Amino acid sequence: MASRVAVVGAGPSGLAQLHSFVEARNQGANIPELVCFEKQHDWAGLWNYTWRTGLDEYGDPVHGSMYRYLWSNGPKECLEFADYTFAEHFGKAIPSFPPREVLYDYITGRAKKNNIRQYIQFATAVRWISYDETKETFELIVETLADGSTRTEEFDYVIVGTGHFSTPNVPSFEGFAEFPGRILHSHDFRDAREFAGKNLLIVGSSYSAEDIALQSKKYGANTVTITYRSAPMGFSWPDGIEEVPLLRKLTGSTAHFADGSSREVDAILLCTGYQHCLNFVEESLRLRTANVLYTPNLYKGVFWLGNPKMMYLGMQDQYYTFTLFDVQAWYARDYVLGRITLPPRAEMAADIDAWRTRLDGLADAFEEIDFQADHIADLAKDVDYPEFDLDLTRENFKKWEHDKEASITGYRDRGFTSPCTGSQAPAHHTPWWQELDDSMATFLR
Amino acid sequence: MASRVAVVGAGPSGLAQLHSFVEARNQGANIPELVCFEKQHDWAGLWNYTWRTGLDEYGDPVHGSMYRYLWSNGPKECLEFADYTFAEHFGKAIPSFPPREVLYDYITGRAKKNNIRQYIQFATAVRWISYDETKETFELIVETLADGSTRTEEFDYVIVGTGHFSTPNVPSFEGFAEFPGRILHSHDFRDAREFAGKNLLIVGSSYSAEDIALQSKKYGANTVTITYRSAPMGFSWPDGIEEVPLLRKLTGSTAHFADGSSREVDAILLCTGYQHCLNFVEESLRLRTANVLYTPNLYKGVFWLGNPKMMYLGMQDQYYTFTLFDVQAWYARDYVLGRITLPPRAEMAADIDAWRTRLDGLADAFEEIDFQADHIADLAKDVDYPEFDLDLTRENFKKWEHDKEASITGYRDRGFTSPCTGSQAPAHHTPWWQELDDSMATFLR
Ligand SMILES: Cc1cc2nc3c(=O)[nH]c(=O)nc-3n(C[C@H](O)[C@H](O)[C@H](O)COP(=O)(O)OP(=O)(O)OC[C@H]3O[C@@H](n4cnc5c(N)ncnc54)[C@H](O)[C@@H]3O)c2cc1C
Ligand SMILES: Cc1cc2nc3c(=O)[nH]c(=O)nc-3n(C[C@H](O)[C@H](O)[C@H](O)COP(=O)(O)OP(=O)(O)OC[C@H]3O[C@@H](n4cnc5c(N)ncnc54)[C@H](O)[C@@H]3O)c2cc1C
Ligand SMILES: NC(=O)c1ccc[n+]([C@@H]2O[C@H](COP(=O)([O-])OP(=O)(O)OC[C@H]3O[C@@H](n4cnc5c(N)ncnc54)[C@H](OP(=O)(O)O)[C@@H]3O)[C@@H](O)[C@H]2O)c1
Ligand SMILES: NC(=O)c1ccc[n+]([C@@H]2O[C@H](COP(=O)([O-])OP(=O)(O)OC[C@H]3O[C@@H](n4cnc5c(N)ncnc54)[C@H](OP(=O)(O)O)[C@@H]3O)[C@@H](O)[C@H]2O)c1
Repeated sequence: MASRVAVVGAGPSGLAQLHSFVEARNQGANIPELVCFEKQHDWAGLWNYTWRTGLDEYGDPVHGSMYRYLWSNGPKECLEFADYTFAEHFGKAIPSFPPREVLYDYITGRAKKNNIRQYIQFATAVRWISYDETKETFELIVETLADGSTRTEEFDYVIVGTGHFSTPNVPSFEGFAEFPGRILHSHDFRDAREFAGKNLLIVGSSYSAEDIALQSKKYGANTVTITYRSAPMGFSWPDGIEEVPLLRKLTGSTAHFADGSSREVDAILLCTGYQHCLNFVEESLRLRTANVLYTPNLYKGVFWLGNPKMMYLGMQDQYYTFTLFDVQAWYARDYVLGRITLPPRAEMAADIDAWRTRLDGLADAFEEIDFQADHIADLAKDVDYPEFDLDLTRENFKKWEHDKEASITGYRDRGFTSPCTGSQAPAHHTPWWQELDDSMATFLR
Repeated sequence: MASRVAVVGAGPSGLAQLHSFVEARNQGANIPELVCFEKQHDWAGLWNYTWRTGLDEYGDPVHGSMYRYLWSNGPKECLEFADYTFAEHFGKAIPSFPPREVLYDYITGRAKKNNIRQYIQFATAVRWISYDETKETFELIVETLADGSTRTEEFDYVIVGTGHFSTPNVPSFEGFAEFPGRILHSHDFRDAREFAGKNLLIVGSSYSAEDIALQSKKYGANTVTITYRSAPMGFSWPDGIEEVPLLRKLTGSTAHFADGSSREVDAILLCTGYQHCLNFVEESLRLRTANVLYTPNLYKGVFWLGNPKMMYLGMQDQYYTFTLFDVQAWYARDYVLGRITLPPRAEMAADIDAWRTRLDGLADAFEEIDFQADHIADLAKDVDYPEFDLDLTRENFKKWEHDKEASITGYRDRGFTSPCTGSQAPAHHTPWWQELDDSMATFLR
């Protein structure tokens, strides 16, 4: 069995990995030495809110992309840990769409229960991962951020859970260099109140565009214009939010769109998604992919085809999140523990191909949900991750899609059934569109 | 003679280095192979304005710290290239405090004249510099940003001119996590018009604090409160700008200061300076220093004491800029060309010590100016950098200090005498405090 396992990142994925090993040990298994490197001062990844933007106190890119007043955009009954329910954590039933602080509390609650913190070296960044063919070990160059000193450590396995919603994709448009206002990517968005009274232009038509448009309006923006490249989101937006075709250029503060229309804007928000940034991994081990539901070169979505001792968690686009990371972590753990043997490379490659071929043929969000649920089922069947009602989560997601169509400001007021406990979530005491306070204290009141 | 020289960065320092070699060749010398790596798409370093903030299109930290409507804060008669005067470049006399675009044009004008661009690989970042003791060469890991591919190249000499005003120093204060508005470092400041009508809090009391306070007011801020740690700047500020002791904490949008006073603010601007960030240099070659007029471990301000084939340009705090970079570049060039021999290490260390001891004893800005002028003289005496009236530049700087005391909004209206041509600068057609247009076209009108 392996002697040393490196886990890179202590976000939901990295924490799931550490947790999975401790669960095995709790059930009597011998587990390898675990070392988790986390560049932030605290755990929970994106859920660890920071006011910082751009570069942090060490001159390193800020990881955080979450903003104030961020509420879960999917029902919590689609991401509930099968071995640590919301009911267990909060001691009571809570509504389906919690604000960030509540999910932070939940994620870290499970980690505290298993005393996971002991494995994590905080304010420590992994700078380079390479593989030594002769020694058959990985070498990690690791930096202690406080003093900038680096050291090299050797590991038998590496599991990367560094997320992929932190390095912004920042396109440019004609006239940006002269635009007389703020231009920012959603990665740097923090507080909607900054834009109260302003006319905002939002570029993009996915989750960030949707949520930041709504939030800006909720906290006082005058108008929000959303400009799309491929297709509008098409929701019934509240007054003051409107979708228009793609931005062509700016002249001063006038935005000109593909349909010939134009509008005066005060600030521009690029909700144009993120890049997978694994520039701390040597090229032969580095995942390169767009934001898709099944990436190239990762068997079972986890194992690097060129060297399966190199593993990645959570590198897919995400309907499912915490449960997905859990089953991936369980699978990685069982491989490390020797409980699972991987097939020959050609077979792994064929399996990836089959999934990616199916991916290419998906027609809509409903098929995408089933696809990702099937990926979870594909892993879950081989590991001892506790039972939960996966089919109910499919239904929950599909109901959620319909709820959003019905009311984009009202979908977060709906309640869902837990796939773990079978109980129904209560309604929140205040409709989301009216609720300006996102604190845990108010939410749990 | 050396075969290969790497120049890292094509800002004013890197361009000075390339130019110095070409000047030697123009005068008949054999010069080594020169390769300059520049991570931006264009040259001139900080003077190459970008609307981008945070991370760039490659996920790399944005280098640019300059903002719209930035005018030179020192007289151009203190930074004039001795071998390429303003009169030569513009074909006429121009005022003493040009806006950014004009200085960009001037810097790149000299570089174009000598066809320097041929040596530069743009959108190419140096990721790691190490020294191989056995081969006695430097190895540079270099990344082509467009496709993220890396390669290793060998060089006999490395000259680093990557600047030190791009990685922000970002302190935190109690209450930042809850402050309901934008918090940014001056590195991310771009357009003052964003803050029109707002009450701004500026932290810091040096050049950025001074200039951004004035500029924000000029473009419509309601009030600007400047909070200082060590001492106020003490200028006669225009109405609406005020200096107060250090910020203690924020409660909501109320800023509380060390003198017990408090104020409502809409946005917070950290003008708290920069860090030398040379995290692409192996530790044994890495300069670590605060922003000072003479750094540790650099002989003549240029040569790395532990290995003088590793050189740094422009790593000092700066009264002098372009002329300083020029004489440093000339000195580095002559060392590479074998025209200058460096003394034994102990002698170099003693020389550094002597300068740093003198530095410790400096009483005020006037003595600092003389100190840096003496450093320039110390280098200039050994190289063939063209003659210019260095003593006149000392006088110019001292006059400039007095002008700022007399009128912080009016000092940029004064004219100075060129240390190269002896002619006097004309007045600008519009007082700076009234001039909202910073374009080259308007300036040269
Ligand atoms: C704006 C936004 C809102 C979201 N909202 C939701 C939501 O409502 N519900 C939901 O389920 N999901 C949401 N997500 C999706 C989110 O991706 C997941 O919930 C989850 O955070 C992913 O976990 P992760 O551990 O894979 O990555 P992350 O949470 O990104 O954590 C990665 C960790 O790795 C660390 N790290 C990175 N590089 C290094 C390095 N070189 N060395 C050491 N440490 C490193 C980081 O500091 C970080 O702590 C949202 C994402 C964004 C961007
Ligand atoms: C806001 C601001 C205003 C200023 N105003 C003035 C002024 O009015 N007058 C004045 O004289 N000076 C001013 N300065 C001072 C400025 O430092 C100098 O004028 C000058 O730009 C320094 O030149 P440099 O080449 O040393 O560094 P920079 O101008 O910073 O150039 C460094 C170059 O190195 C490149 N680089 C960095 N890292 C890498 C890497 N790893 N690989 C490849 N390339 C890399 C960068 O992209 C950049 O092009 C100002 C500075 C700031 C921050
Ligand atoms: N809890 C919440 O409320 C919340 C809020 C925000 C985000 N999130 C999460 O954050 C993650 C990321 O979501 P995201 O919306 O930031 O990224 P995303 O889903 O990858 O979407 C990126 C969007 O940017 C557009 N785009 C990219 N390049 C463009 C260009 N050059 N010009 C115009 N448009 C361009 C894309 O358009 P095309 O469609 O044309 O490709 C797409 O609409 C998701 O997991 C999401 O669930 C959650
Ligand atoms: N052309 C222009 O008009 C222009 C405009 C801006 C900048 N510049 C140039 O840019 C360069 C950088 O100038 P800069 O002003 O950004 O940096 P700087 O000169 O290094 O000054 C940093 C300031 O931040 C303060 N500070 C640092 N940490 C702090 C903390 N924790 N709390 C409170 N205050 C803190 C320092 O205070 P202490 O004094 O207490 O240490 C100092 O006043 C200079 O070369 C300058 O010429 C030029």
